[in-house]
Amino acid sequence: MGIVLGDNRYGKAEVRMVHVDRSTPRHVLTDVTVTSQLLGHFDETFLTGSNASVIATDTQKNTVYALARTGGIGAVEEFGLRLARWFVDGFDQVTGARMEIRQHFWDRIPTAQGPHDHSFVRSGGEVRTVLVRKDGDREVVLSGLAGLVVLKSTGSEFWGFPDAPYTSLVETRDRIMATEVTARWRYTDPGHDPATFDRLHADVRATLLERFATLHSLSLQQTLFAMGTAVLERRPEIAEIRMSMPNRHHFLVDLSPWGLDNPNEVFHAADRPYGLIEAAVVRDDVEPVPWAWDGVSGFV
Amino acid sequence: MGIVLGDNRYGKAEVRMVHVDRSTPRHVLTDVTVTSQLLGHFDETFLTGSNASVIATDTQKNTVYALARTGGIGAVEEFGLRLARWFVDGFDQVTGARMEIRQHFWDRIPTAQGPHDHSFVRSGGEVRTVLVRKDGDREVVLSGLAGLVVLKSTGSEFWGFPDAPYTSLVETRDRIMATEVTARWRYTDPGHDPATFDRLHADVRATLLERFATLHSLSLQQTLFAMGTAVLERRPEIAEIRMSMPNRHHFLVDLSPWGLDNPNEVFHAADRPYGLIEAAVVRDDVEPVPWAWDGVSGFV
Amino acid sequence: MGIVLGDNRYGKAEVRMVHVDRSTPRHVLTDVTVTSQLLGHFDETFLTGSNASVIATDTQKNTVYALARTGGIGAVEEFGLRLARWFVDGFDQVTGARMEIRQHFWDRIPTAQGPHDHSFVRSGGEVRTVLVRKDGDREVVLSGLAGLVVLKSTGSEFWGFPDAPYTSLVETRDRIMATEVTARWRYTDPGHDPATFDRLHADVRATLLERFATLHSLSLQQTLFAMGTAVLERRPEIAEIRMSMPNRHHFLVDLSPWGLDNPNEVFHAADRPYGLIEAAVVRDDVEPVPWAWDGVSGFV
Amino acid sequence: MGIVLGDNRYGKAEVRMVHVDRSTPRHVLTDVTVTSQLLGHFDETFLTGSNASVIATDTQKNTVYALARTGGIGAVEEFGLRLARWFVDGFDQVTGARMEIRQHFWDRIPTAQGPHDHSFVRSGGEVRTVLVRKDGDREVVLSGLAGLVVLKSTGSEFWGFPDAPYTSLVETRDRIMATEVTARWRYTDPGHDPATFDRLHADVRATLLERFATLHSLSLQQTLFAMGTAVLERRPEIAEIRMSMPNRHHFLVDLSPWGLDNPNEVFHAADRPYGLIEAAVVRDDVEPVPWAWDGVSGFV
Repeated sequence: MGIVLGDNRYGKAEVRMVHVDRSTPRHVLTDVTVTSQLLGHFDETFLTGSNASVIATDTQKNTVYALARTGGIGAVEEFGLRLARWFVDGFDQVTGARMEIRQHFWDRIPTAQGPHDHSFVRSGGEVRTVLVRKDGDREVVLSGLAGLVVLKSTGSEFWGFPDAPYTSLVETRDRIMATEVTARWRYTDPGHDPATFDRLHADVRATLLERFATLHSLSLQQTLFAMGTAVLERRPEIAEIRMSMPNRHHFLVDLSPWGLDNPNEVFHAADRPYGLIEAAVVRDDVEPVPWAWDGVSGFV
Repeated sequence: MGIVLGDNRYGKAEVRMVHVDRSTPRHVLTDVTVTSQLLGHFDETFLTGSNASVIATDTQKNTVYALARTGGIGAVEEFGLRLARWFVDGFDQVTGARMEIRQHFWDRIPTAQGPHDHSFVRSGGEVRTVLVRKDGDREVVLSGLAGLVVLKSTGSEFWGFPDAPYTSLVETRDRIMATEVTARWRYTDPGHDPATFDRLHADVRATLLERFATLHSLSLQQTLFAMGTAVLERRPEIAEIRMSMPNRHHFLVDLSPWGLDNPNEVFHAADRPYGLIEAAVVRDDVEPVPWAWDGVSGFV
Repeated sequence: MGIVLGDNRYGKAEVRMVHVDRSTPRHVLTDVTVTSQLLGHFDETFLTGSNASVIATDTQKNTVYALARTGGIGAVEEFGLRLARWFVDGFDQVTGARMEIRQHFWDRIPTAQGPHDHSFVRSGGEVRTVLVRKDGDREVVLSGLAGLVVLKSTGSEFWGFPDAPYTSLVETRDRIMATEVTARWRYTDPGHDPATFDRLHADVRATLLERFATLHSLSLQQTLFAMGTAVLERRPEIAEIRMSMPNRHHFLVDLSPWGLDNPNEVFHAADRPYGLIEAAVVRDDVEPVPWAWDGVSGFV
Repeated sequence: MGIVLGDNRYGKAEVRMVHVDRSTPRHVLTDVTVTSQLLGHFDETFLTGSNASVIATDTQKNTVYALARTGGIGAVEEFGLRLARWFVDGFDQVTGARMEIRQHFWDRIPTAQGPHDHSFVRSGGEVRTVLVRKDGDREVVLSGLAGLVVLKSTGSEFWGFPDAPYTSLVETRDRIMATEVTARWRYTDPGHDPATFDRLHADVRATLLERFATLHSLSLQQTLFAMGTAVLERRPEIAEIRMSMPNRHHFLVDLSPWGLDNPNEVFHAADRPYGLIEAAVVRDDVEPVPWAWDGVSGFV
């Protein structure tokens, strides 16, 4: 018996990189935050401080820049796969890799002459995410999005819950429902070309939004499951989707002390606490891949 | 001689309110964060702890809600003026008011049936701001925006600066220029109707963006001044505009140690430190109103 | 084959509660942020929107307050266990619980008459954490801390790493090493009384600090492993410890262009990117409990 | 009449610098964030883009580092004065400077052999601040602190306020009062040596804390004024002090629906909105210096 090293990984977090494709005067901007982590035969640095097998985290950072220069970025899924393969296939001591990328979006600035060639305006807080896991020859791609904030000003009910001890919540047939969607979905087959990844991402996002918009909600749980189901029904390429959806409460302000009614018109948007619903929607005939989700923050 | 109370103000900060106009099935959402502060004859609570003249900050919060219920919100400039007048005109002990509002934006969710009636998606980090100051009968409206992040991937130079001690910066004829614009502008006459405020705001924002996009930049200072000038040239209703524009540095990554060139293609987006340029662009025939800018964070 | 509900949980996140023990004039303050989540037979609300089995998240919030009132808080480990047992033992539909608590610290304000009885000053950003998982009868307690920022101004080397492609890092025999420790450790037996939990937490924290301070570092990995080993050697009650330690780089500023040396005296503290080392230190004769770590952010 | 450049300043914001005094084995750490801004004859870069007079912001950053190397940092007030004088006295085109410094604190790690010589632990979120303004020969020093979070679990009342429209707040004779103090004070004479600045800062901080702790509070306003008065009474070197004190509401949780009382024991710590009290306490026989406070965020 003794004290030993358990699971471990290491790398460089949050490399902030902007890539400009200047092949035509109409520049194309790709803005990403990359976290690169490696797994493998790195026990010695933990046990003795010998760094003979350590690919320096500074080198991982440089590799992110160099691979962007030599091959461009393209779809972040493809870039994550290229990085993972670079390290796992290129170094004996590296047996696995975990590449996490967040993509930030920019729109062209509208001008009298149309959308500008090389001037851009940042388009909000939503990000496209990807988590690529590679373990030897096995590769798993989890595409996703974060920061998608949505709200329904009607078409949402919540009632029929039991009167458990310490319950004081009042039933409602009409409330504001607001949430910030974080989602990750796993492709059954990661061998897509970049254009396919881009198209699939746009399609999943549109499906999530449309289902949220059009569903009459009886609970945030029902809404989450319907959104996930819509994605799986539409895209056979997707094996499972996990979502984390905080319930950002909007409380109706009580104006009755001053003789005013408030027919679902004026709300207080609360910060904390908030409800938190997390669930996976999966195909029951597809093998799960739990290790791909290791260390994912919260549920997604 | 002695120790006395100097300038002071008090109120309720960051009232998070969402207002839903349900007068038609096509709901209209207004999402604001309101900070209400009062000035006046409040010495007693400081000196003796007597609260006989104190409009409780909780009451200020309730008033924000109640005025939204009784008159809607409309343009945030109008809502700020209504709040300021409510307090200054309604209470003897209140001689001045400072109302600061930040408006957050939502888009309708696109669906197969078109933009949805009551489902919305948050449209990014940019906010519309207003600071209303009222001192007795005098009213000043400072409209503004914050969080407008823009970037040019070319069309920006920086050279010709003196070789002062401790200078190592290299001249460049082509760089990325990125900044986050915060701007406030003062109207010569606040007596506009809400529709006018909305139209003016949209026009100023479009003018700032277009000037940033189309100007060939020799310095961030020159860009700032050109943007402000474009606004004043276009809108005679505006007396002055102040802008704060951090220089969010994008550093070209040096790939030469590995035999790679980098023709303005791969950049590191740095966090800190950052350049910071702050300036006012003003009409020289309009009386300044320095008190309206009291306590404005940084320069704007 | 079909689309089904996978893993899921739900609850109320970030209940901000302050408890004052007023049993003597010398008040005792306990300041916590509690996230309560339940697992169990909740499929119906996802599938049909029926909430007949749903313990409302609002009720979970009220339960946090009520249990604090009826039994106090005590050690956060004990409070987490009480909450988990309340839900799992009290409701047929609840089969599991996940309670996460962050404790914030206050010191008594020093006065001429000694530490004050009921006036406190917040003592920094570090928090004590606990994650309690209960699955039927099985209970696991993960104690931890976050936000423990430490720095060594010498006694840290980094050299001997291979010259992999894209390596430019220079070897150093003397650098600043700084990190923000996040750690969670699993007790072999959660049946301790509150006083024991408090004492163990203080002991682990002191051990982590002392080992960091006194070890001559050859890599952040070696430092992490030594810190974890010191904890396991000292406390037989602990089965494993996981740590996440970002390498907060402090870069020596190059002043040579101006004829100045810089003998490890003036440093730039960088924000991003940063190295990130994550590892577990475990006893090899103790059964692992992977489900207890589900959904833990990053590595810990 | 025409459009002209108004007030302006520019510089480098948030230079993160750590200085290690290694003159003895017992290292002394100084950790600061410096924002350097210059005022003067810089119209050309705004009007024409000519940078012939512009001290590059990159040069300002280098100067921060170089002056730390050549003269150490000492008290942040002294370092701010040295920086301001470097620029104003050394360059014809620079007529004014604004140096803002935030100092972050570290404690020595306690070990079995006593406080460690070169290993440190960060001591919380509170910062020491200084704002140095220099306009030609005139120099003003505003020392300060931020992030000082304090709480009284009793000894605070709030009642006697008028029943203005939209008032629903209930009077209380016993509440929690919590706030985060931001304060800046102006010295009558900045010609102190570093040791004096350090001693004065410690004395002001202790005085603010002691007064907060021992005063029986009737309003946050009264508390603020008493704290400021205590500082001015104790330190004749100080001409005025400005404070911003948000009222971080702690609401008593209503447990009566379930037959539980709550005798000021369980509180909900709210995020937003919050009360906000801002005031100056001044000597009535000292000339005010309003320009020194230009652009100070909020009130302080």
